[in-house]
Formats: sequence, C-alpha cells, structure tokens
Amino acid sequence: MMTATRVKERSLLGLRGLDATEISAILDRAAYWDKHTEKVSSVLASRFVSNMFFENSTRTRFSFEMAEKRLGAQVLNFTAAASSVEKGESIYDTVRTLESMGIDAGVIRLKPSGVLAQLSEKVSIPLINAGDGNNEHPTQALLDLYTMLKTFGEIKGLTVSIIGDIMHSRVARSNLWGLTKMGAKVQFCAPENMKAPELMEHAPYVTIDEALKADVVMMLRVQLERHASGMLQSAEEYRRQFGLTEERAAKLDSHTVIMHPAPVNRNVEIDDAVVESAKSLIFPQMSNGVPVRMAVIERAIR
Amino acid sequence: MMTATRVKERSLLGLRGLDATEISAILDRAAYWDKHTEKVSSVLASRFVSNMFFENSTRTRFSFEMAEKRLGAQVLNFTAAASSVEKGESIYDTVRTLESMGIDAGVIRLKPSGVLAQLSEKVSIPLINAGDGNNEHPTQALLDLYTMLKTFGEIKGLTVSIIGDIMHSRVARSNLWGLTKMGAKVQFCAPENMKAPELMEHAPYVTIDEALKADVVMMLRVQLERHASGMLQSAEEYRRQFGLTEERAAKLDSHTVIMHPAPVNRNVEIDDAVVESAKSLIFPQMSNGVPVRMAVIERAIR
Amino acid sequence: MMTATRVKERSLLGLRGLDATEISAILDRAAYWDKHTEKVSSVLASRFVSNMFFENSTRTRFSFEMAEKRLGAQVLNFTAAASSVEKGESIYDTVRTLESMGIDAGVIRLKPSGVLAQLSEKVSIPLINAGDGNNEHPTQALLDLYTMLKTFGEIKGLTVSIIGDIMHSRVARSNLWGLTKMGAKVQFCAPENMKAPELMEHAPYVTIDEALKADVVMMLRVQLERHASGMLQSAEEYRRQFGLTEERAAKLDSHTVIMHPAPVNRNVEIDDAVVESAKSLIFPQMSNGVPVRMAVIERAIR
Repeated sequence: MMTATRVKERSLLGLRGLDATEISAILDRAAYWDKHTEKVSSVLASRFVSNMFFENSTRTRFSFEMAEKRLGAQVLNFTAAASSVEKGESIYDTVRTLESMGIDAGVIRLKPSGVLAQLSEKVSIPLINAGDGNNEHPTQALLDLYTMLKTFGEIKGLTVSIIGDIMHSRVARSNLWGLTKMGAKVQFCAPENMKAPELMEHAPYVTIDEALKADVVMMLRVQLERHASGMLQSAEEYRRQFGLTEERAAKLDSHTVIMHPAPVNRNVEIDDAVVESAKSLIFPQMSNGVPVRMAVIERAIR
Repeated sequence: MMTATRVKERSLLGLRGLDATEISAILDRAAYWDKHTEKVSSVLASRFVSNMFFENSTRTRFSFEMAEKRLGAQVLNFTAAASSVEKGESIYDTVRTLESMGIDAGVIRLKPSGVLAQLSEKVSIPLINAGDGNNEHPTQALLDLYTMLKTFGEIKGLTVSIIGDIMHSRVARSNLWGLTKMGAKVQFCAPENMKAPELMEHAPYVTIDEALKADVVMMLRVQLERHASGMLQSAEEYRRQFGLTEERAAKLDSHTVIMHPAPVNRNVEIDDAVVESAKSLIFPQMSNGVPVRMAVIERAIR
Repeated sequence: MMTATRVKERSLLGLRGLDATEISAILDRAAYWDKHTEKVSSVLASRFVSNMFFENSTRTRFSFEMAEKRLGAQVLNFTAAASSVEKGESIYDTVRTLESMGIDAGVIRLKPSGVLAQLSEKVSIPLINAGDGNNEHPTQALLDLYTMLKTFGEIKGLTVSIIGDIMHSRVARSNLWGLTKMGAKVQFCAPENMKAPELMEHAPYVTIDEALKADVVMMLRVQLERHASGMLQSAEEYRRQFGLTEERAAKLDSHTVIMHPAPVNRNVEIDDAVVESAKSLIFPQMSNGVPVRMAVIERAIR
C-alpha cells in the first residue's frame, strides 16, 4: 500500500500543482516512449488500469487505452452511458468500488469541476485527470507541450496564442499553467462573453490579428450547443470574427504552427484546408498523446 | 466437447441447486485466490469468457472482468445497450451465436426470471448466473458467505437478518439458499407489500428491532422507482421504518457486522455514516467478489 | 510505412474488386486457422486492430474481436453509441485519429454507402469492410463461401438462390460477386419492390418455387422496420410468399443446405424449426466466420 503522500505525488490532477522539473521529467519520459521501437512493453504487466469516463470522449479514452496497452497493463473500461450511474450510483461510489476490486490506477473524466480534487482525498490509488469540467485537462496540455518541444526544441521563450472559448476551456487552463511554468508566454483571444475573468492576471487578451503573431496558434473547439443559450451568434459569425480561415492562415509567419485539441469543427473555428495544411500539427498532436500518456501512467504506478 | 452433465455441473445457475460441499469447495478456492500474490495468473490462458449483460451493471460486470483477467482469460464484453438485441435478436440467439464463435463460458445477466434455466438446457458451454430477474444472484451470495467466513471463521450457527424488498430480491433468495445450506439461520424483515410469500416457509419475518439482533445485518437496495408504482411511500418514510440509520446502527451488538450488496442509496436504506463505519463490510464485500468469481469461473472451464 | 498500393492490396473493401485467386488464398488460409488447435496464436502480438462500428452489430463485432484475439492482436473497440460522433465528429476524423494514435488496421462498419471507398484513399492503414450501407459485406460472403466449400468440396458449379430484400442487401451483393467469380451460379428471388435493378444483368430473378431448387438456399433477413414505410405488407404475408416455412423446407432436395447471415427473424423469413434443422448451416456459418476473419486480418497486417 502506498502512503497517502506517495499516492498524491503519483496522481495527475492538473498542471497547476506541478513544477517545471516535474513537467520536464514527464516530457523526457514521453520522448523515451516515443522513440521506443517495441510496440507493446511489459513494464506494467499484471497491473490494472481503469478508464472511468463519466463524460464521453472517444479520442481521449482511446489514447489512454492505447498507452495502457503499450505499457502491457490490463485495461478495464467504464463509461457512464453503459453503467449504473443513472440509477443513482455516485461517481464516488463507482471509484471506491473499482478501487476495492483491485485496480492500480484510475483515469477519470467527469463533468463537474472540483469533484476530482475531493475524490483524490478519499481514495488510495493514483488518479489521472482525463478532463474535469472546465478546470484542467493536464494530459492534453502535456501532449501540446511535448509537440511544441519536438517542433521548436525548447518551450522557453515561445509565444503561444490560445483562441476561442477560454471561459469554458480546461485545455486553455492546463496549457496556461504548463506553458508559463516552462517559460513560454501565453496570450488569449476570445469573444467578450467567453473570456475567463479569473485568468486575466495570468495572460493578456489580444485581438485576433495580434494573436496570429505567435510561434503557436492554438485554436479551441467551439461548443456549437452554446448557440442555443444565446452565447454564440452563429457558426458563420464566429468563423468570420475568430476562425482560423484560409485567409488568416496565409498571413501567418513561416515558422508559426497551428494546433487544436480536436475534435475540430471544420469551417467553424478552423477551415478544412487549414486542418490538413503543412502548418497544422493536429494529427501529430494525436500521435504524441500516446507516449505522453504512457509517461503519465507509468509515473502513476510503476 | 464436455458432456451435457459435465457442462451442467460446471455451470452456476443458483445456490438452490448446490449442496454444502460444493459451496465449501468454491469458498475454499476463493480463499486460495484471495491469498494468491501474483495478480495475473495463466490458469485460463487461451480460454475465452464472454460477459453477456442483457441488464446493465457496472459493478458486477467489472468484478467478473477483473476475475477473468486475473485468471489470464481472454474477455469479450457484450452489453445489450450496445448491441442488436433491440432489433429483435433474442437472448437465446445471442448466446448461441457467441457459443458458435468459440467462447468457453458465458457470464450472463438478464431481466426475465426463468429464461436462464431454459437457456442452459440448449447450449453446451457452462453458464454463470450474474443475476436473473428476482430469481438468483449466486456469486453475490457466495461473496457474502465468503465475507462472513473471513469475519467469523465459520458460517454455521450465524444469525443473518436480511432487510428490505425481499419480494423482488435475487440477492435475498441466493443468500437464503446458500446460508441455510451452510447452517446459518436466516430471518427477513420487510414492509408488508415487499414480503415474498413463497419464502415464508424457509425463513421467518421479524420486526426491524428483532432484525437488528443478529450477527449479520444485511441491508438490501431500495428500488426507488417503485415509488412511482405506489409500492413505496417515500424514501424518507422507508428510512424511518426500515433504514439502518445511525441511531439503529449505534444499538447493534459490538460483534454485529453490516453488509449490503451495493450500490447503496445513501441515507435511504442505510445512512451515509454507517456505510463508512467500522462495522460496515460493504467495501470488503466488493474486494471479496473478485477471488470468489475467480473460483467460480475456474470451476466452469479449467 | 507501407506504400499506398500495398495498403490497398491489404485492405478488404469488397469482393467485387478481388479475383478468384485472391479469394481462394483467403479461403485456404481460413482452412488453416480452422484446423489450428492452439486457440490463441502470437502471429499478431504487438499489433493493434481497432473495430470501428459506426453502426451497431453484436455478431459481427464479436466475430472480428474473437478473430483478432485468436491472432494475438491488441484490440480497441469503438462504437458510435459510446462515442463523440454525435457531437459532430465525422467518421473521417475518427478514423484519422485512431490512425494517428498508431493502430495497424481498422475494421469498419458504417451506414452510408460509398464513404468507405473515399476513406480508404485518405488513410494509410489497411481497412476491412465489416458492412457498408447496402454496398458490400465481404467477410460475410467469404464465410458463406467457406461454408459452402466445406460442405460441397468445391464452389464451382453450385447453384445458390438468394431470397429476400435484394435491393437493400450488402450480403446479397458480396455473395453475388464472390460466388460468380468462383464459378457458382447465383439466382435471386425477391418481392417486386425489393429487386435491385442494377443487378439484373448479373443474376436472374426466379420464383420462390424455382429458388428452392438449388444447392444452397440463402435466406436474407427481413428489415421489419420497412413495414412502416409501406414496403412490407406484413410479416405474415412475407412469410406466406417468401418465407422458408417448414412446408417449403420439406420439399428441398436431400443435398440442399440452408444458410442465413443472421440474426434471423424466426417465423418470418425462416421458420423456427428450420433454423434448428439438420439442413441448416446457420450456426456453422457463425463458427466459420472466426477463421475467415483471422485470414482477412492476418492478410491485412502480417
């Protein structure tokens, strides 16, 4: 049995709580796995990891499952849709149940913000945050950092513009904490009603034209369902004001790269041709997610 | 190919059909797996087990999957929600299909009572009942028995009170059969309209105050949806009359333990603080489910 | 990285694009796996196969998963119901995502016809068609061919009647292409409004009485939901006119066998007693699906 402190050190709840040395150690280990030729290792043979997704996500669950299997771990998938969560079972009880059954670590994604932090106080296995509300999505930010590191050789000194619905974005937050700790400069660009007031002190808001002058232009996914709530005028209007259109992409400096956490709304926040262009690192980001998550899971239970 | 008799001997449809020797053999083997230090064995390497859940249950499916993987088996999960059952495929045809494809055993959970017994006559692989209607849930009762055995050293002579909706409970029935065969005394406590008339000859109904005087107090989950049908007045009223409140728990004898098949409705049939109290064996029950199910699956196909 | 040509050669989009030599090679390899006594091989150890089902199918997904696991591959299951496809993620983006994450081959089932062909131009991993719209379902036809080969020793010269909703059937189309290439004679039998005009030049339509005079009588599943659209009068009327009733089955020649891709609508297109009769190869077809799919997957990525 690990001590409570040890468990917490091995959990990954967010990047806000890590320091640059810890982040660098994860990125170094990701580089190790990235170069590893053997597709399935036996590092975690006989260890059980459970992917507990109380909020659906094909992409993220798949990336974690791939990482777990490449480490040789046994994988148990749980999704709320196919579960008894509907009949009143709380997230806490589910996690405690899986813990009681003997899993060694849990990857967890959930809608409400703040629940994960409470949860981690109550269980004695390491938890890995796969996205919690609008709070953090640390493995996404780590794969973004790793992608920048591979592209530019160093994160320190980069200027990264994050464009879109900052207020509701856990990806923006995790990138903000991770990038600033690693010495990059972050700037946001968002519609007035999608700015996050509490982040103002950490990164400036700039216009779309200023945002395009950066080493990395990171577009966020638009939640089209916000249109219903009146927060979004229309997809067309959003694209016109904040979208990375072909016209805007053509104006980017030759060394500037484009990132997006995916899935993309093609021709809303980013044009179809831009997604597939040479400047786009969107598919490499997905590839990089696997070694990054291998490093995070290995750190949790090796 | 196993003979039909051999297949039936290896199936586990319920505890009503087992004798004390067979139950003891399973509990002994569970103890073996419980002490086994190697997390993944190769006992069932190259054998295929399918979890066929025509009724959802995170907890039970997970426990079986964990048990199967710890035995080294290949696991194929089937849940009705993600299947073609809706387009008219019968349970029988699904099971025959999976059998034709070469699975070595099937773990099956289904809503209608009686279907499983018919099914077992028609297929030639061992079937393990993971809950069928209100008939039986034998692995739950076996893990309950195993938990009592670990706690008291012996099942014979124990008094076990089962409290709640006896009429609709497969857990109550499987425990009744298993416990009486092993020499324990079972007593029920239930609201008038939740008593099972056909079980009256096997166990007496007692008041809640009498029920609390026992070695084991086993609370059943309230089906809150019964409120809609008028069977249940209200959660508050149920708690007042039959719930294991903190007040009632405080009156229990020092050696008395509390059990519940979970998932619990906290503060309905059992108070939140009682679930987490030292007398509660609810989380150990979950842990014990894994070695018990390992024993049951191994018995089916080793 | 395989060349684009090599990837295409290893994909299996349909039987229309294969020649008799290629089909024979797959059937030969299926026979090898069928006789293979070791249940789990290590041929594809460390290779990742993803089952991407954008349309539900228990039977087909299970058969592929069994085949993949028997080859020792790592399996990642994706079903649209448990995915983010609903939130606007396109099929293309999902496949590209999984490809980026490092899968070695994808088994794909989808509703729209024609999408798979486009998709295969854009990705660089082999794709295996597990059913696309009403276009093709090549592994079903291959297992049908393999079943006929096992039964008759040769496919050449057989007369095969395919009875039912030809217009909407990918099974009929794949069987037509596969069987004619292998030298069998195909004839169709269908209600007037379920004939496929574009197939008229490849196989004649015959009456139900003529259709019963064949070596193989292959019944297709009726889509009962077509009743709502007025295409189907009633299940009873369909059975009377086109169903393989006990009466009709009794008139079949002694050497004639009955096939059905399943799942069956018992007592609609085929009587319950006929499904279970000695002439029925329905359950052997399911068994044969596993070695056939092993051959197809092995061909894709070995």
